[in-house]
Amino acid sequence: MRALEFSIQKKDPTSRARLGCIKTAHGNIETPIFMPVGTRAVVKCVTNQQLDSIGAQIILSNTYHLMIRPGIEILALAGGLHSFMKWDKPILTDSGGFQVFSLAELNKVNDDGVHFHSHIDGKKLFIGPNESMEMQKVIGSDIVMCFDECPPYPVDEAKLKEGVRRTLKWAEICRAYPLAPHQSLFGIVQGGVDNELRAQCAQELVKLDFPGYAIGGLSVGEPAELMYEIIDAVEPHLPDSKPRYLMGVGTPHNIVEAVKRGIDMFDCVMPTRAARGGTAYTWQGKIQIKAGRYAKDFSPFDPELDSYASKFSKAYIRHLLNVDEITGLTLVTIQNLAFYLDFMRQLRTAIQEGSFADFHRRIAEIYPK
Amino acid sequence: MRALEFSIQKKDPTSRARLGCIKTAHGNIETPIFMPVGTRAVVKCVTNQQLDSIGAQIILSNTYHLMIRPGIEILALAGGLHSFMKWDKPILTDSGGFQVFSLAELNKVNDDGVHFHSHIDGKKLFIGPNESMEMQKVIGSDIVMCFDECPPYPVDEAKLKEGVRRTLKWAEICRAYPLAPHQSLFGIVQGGVDNELRAQCAQELVKLDFPGYAIGGLSVGEPAELMYEIIDAVEPHLPDSKPRYLMGVGTPHNIVEAVKRGIDMFDCVMPTRAARGGTAYTWQGKIQIKAGRYAKDFSPFDPELDSYASKFSKAYIRHLLNVDEITGLTLVTIQNLAFYLDFMRQLRTAIQEGSFADFHRRIAEIYPK
Repeated sequence: MRALEFSIQKKDPTSRARLGCIKTAHGNIETPIFMPVGTRAVVKCVTNQQLDSIGAQIILSNTYHLMIRPGIEILALAGGLHSFMKWDKPILTDSGGFQVFSLAELNKVNDDGVHFHSHIDGKKLFIGPNESMEMQKVIGSDIVMCFDECPPYPVDEAKLKEGVRRTLKWAEICRAYPLAPHQSLFGIVQGGVDNELRAQCAQELVKLDFPGYAIGGLSVGEPAELMYEIIDAVEPHLPDSKPRYLMGVGTPHNIVEAVKRGIDMFDCVMPTRAARGGTAYTWQGKIQIKAGRYAKDFSPFDPELDSYASKFSKAYIRHLLNVDEITGLTLVTIQNLAFYLDFMRQLRTAIQEGSFADFHRRIAEIYPK
Repeated sequence: MRALEFSIQKKDPTSRARLGCIKTAHGNIETPIFMPVGTRAVVKCVTNQQLDSIGAQIILSNTYHLMIRPGIEILALAGGLHSFMKWDKPILTDSGGFQVFSLAELNKVNDDGVHFHSHIDGKKLFIGPNESMEMQKVIGSDIVMCFDECPPYPVDEAKLKEGVRRTLKWAEICRAYPLAPHQSLFGIVQGGVDNELRAQCAQELVKLDFPGYAIGGLSVGEPAELMYEIIDAVEPHLPDSKPRYLMGVGTPHNIVEAVKRGIDMFDCVMPTRAARGGTAYTWQGKIQIKAGRYAKDFSPFDPELDSYASKFSKAYIRHLLNVDEITGLTLVTIQNLAFYLDFMRQLRTAIQEGSFADFHRRIAEIYPK
């Protein structure tokens, strides 16, 4: 069981897009990749079997949520998350940082870490860099994220600088933590929408020589153009030979724009969350499948996609959601994730075949935002 | 596309249990069989793929619910229920009788049929024997049920007799209705818990020479012993060469008792409904999987069952239900239906191998009620 190895197979001559492969102890990940989100040891509304059938190569899970329920003790007894949820492919876990800053009721943040209250039962809890590493070691994820401070957007400059200082301090502590041999730790670049601060943070992190780097704290309400600008400011400072992960992003359009700027990995709750609200991602664009216009539309859910869900008629899927049948949520979730994974597959093929610019235009037409 | 053919392969020498096969235009059904309930064009919480994987041979759907939503017009446009829900194996539909008497707000019942209000939006609706046949013809189910009057339990004698008289009158109208060539109509024996009335009803129905017979109006609150007594009273009047279906039954114990009395077909919402409440049917008995005692129980959900769901740990399934993850409901539903179908499979093997009496004892131990 070794840590990850990253190789680049091809670079797009018209942009900074790269085609690569991350080798992990639990299997290979072809990049650029989208990671379905399995917050609480499951990707909502689907089974692992269904994830397998649509070609999911890696999933993301959330340390904060796992810590609250089922709790780290249960995961330790289970022998880690792979074994607990019976998912034998790679897993990436976030550090808990994002959730303690966005979900929990904060008590106190200092250089040791964050004192907070559980968003479920109000219980007093603490996570610092060592605690986050300890938990992620028990979880046994293949890719482990540094514990970082996630500022809100917008935020004042002093707080932003303080957050970056702390993020770097914690990154050093995390880097020194002895994870399991199969685990690889990614550093997280913070710095809000301050290009200079972002660049400094990236430079400092690179000195710690992480196996991979993430850009965090984006897609939190700032305009997409600003997000692209930040990627442009950070990317030149990241080593070419390491995978880059843009956390929590995003729409198909966002993803293709970020790939163009040299990003390799993505995660987002959008396809799974939207599914539960009846929004479907298809090769014909985003559709509200509950709309009355689909009541008698017997055309396939997505004629251009070869997934189990895509073959049912729009009228059938609409009926299921209309009568609150859970299987409807499952089928829309499969459609949305299958679309995202097929979109990434086609994106990789486009880089391989030298047609990335065409692919970019095509996506921008189907998903203008 | 022909109507059904029923053959008996073996009879149990110690009871009236029979091993048989129903051939339909959509495939064969090995009897005794359990039919998962797909009320609104879907078996709750699972996909057809999952039903296939656990060996479901036929499902039941409800004319009343389909009539309300998506509506018969949609099903006609879809080319029938098989096509609408993409289930290519046999389907049995009930007539709507049970639901108009149990769910809807009744307006008027007369010899023409039932005027009632939709339980969803209060809309005035009517179903008579011809309307029920017309709808089931559009639905295209392989096995069609006669429109019958379902009395409550308990009920006074006059009303019961009136109900049987009407059920027989309607049965005659249904029998004369020209269904599609692939469809087969079953008569339904009513008569509450009155043995004599039940026997009379069966005799009258048999004169109409149906391709199969059902016993309806049981498992509505009467003691199980009374139900077995009614089966004993009815069964001798049913032709040996036709399949017999006990509607809405029941527990594994009920089923084995009914098979012993010559019944071939069963349906019940119990395994699917119980799943959504966290009750699991396993070869180790019925368990409340949300119970605290399973929090650290990493043994398989059902070590004696070979289904996708059965391999997850009890602790994992409990966690999913505990945090309200929909996938948890899916996995318990798969477990419960897989158990029921495996139970029926083993029951058939027991008849085949001449060990039905042993199997009966085994089930009575695991499921005493």
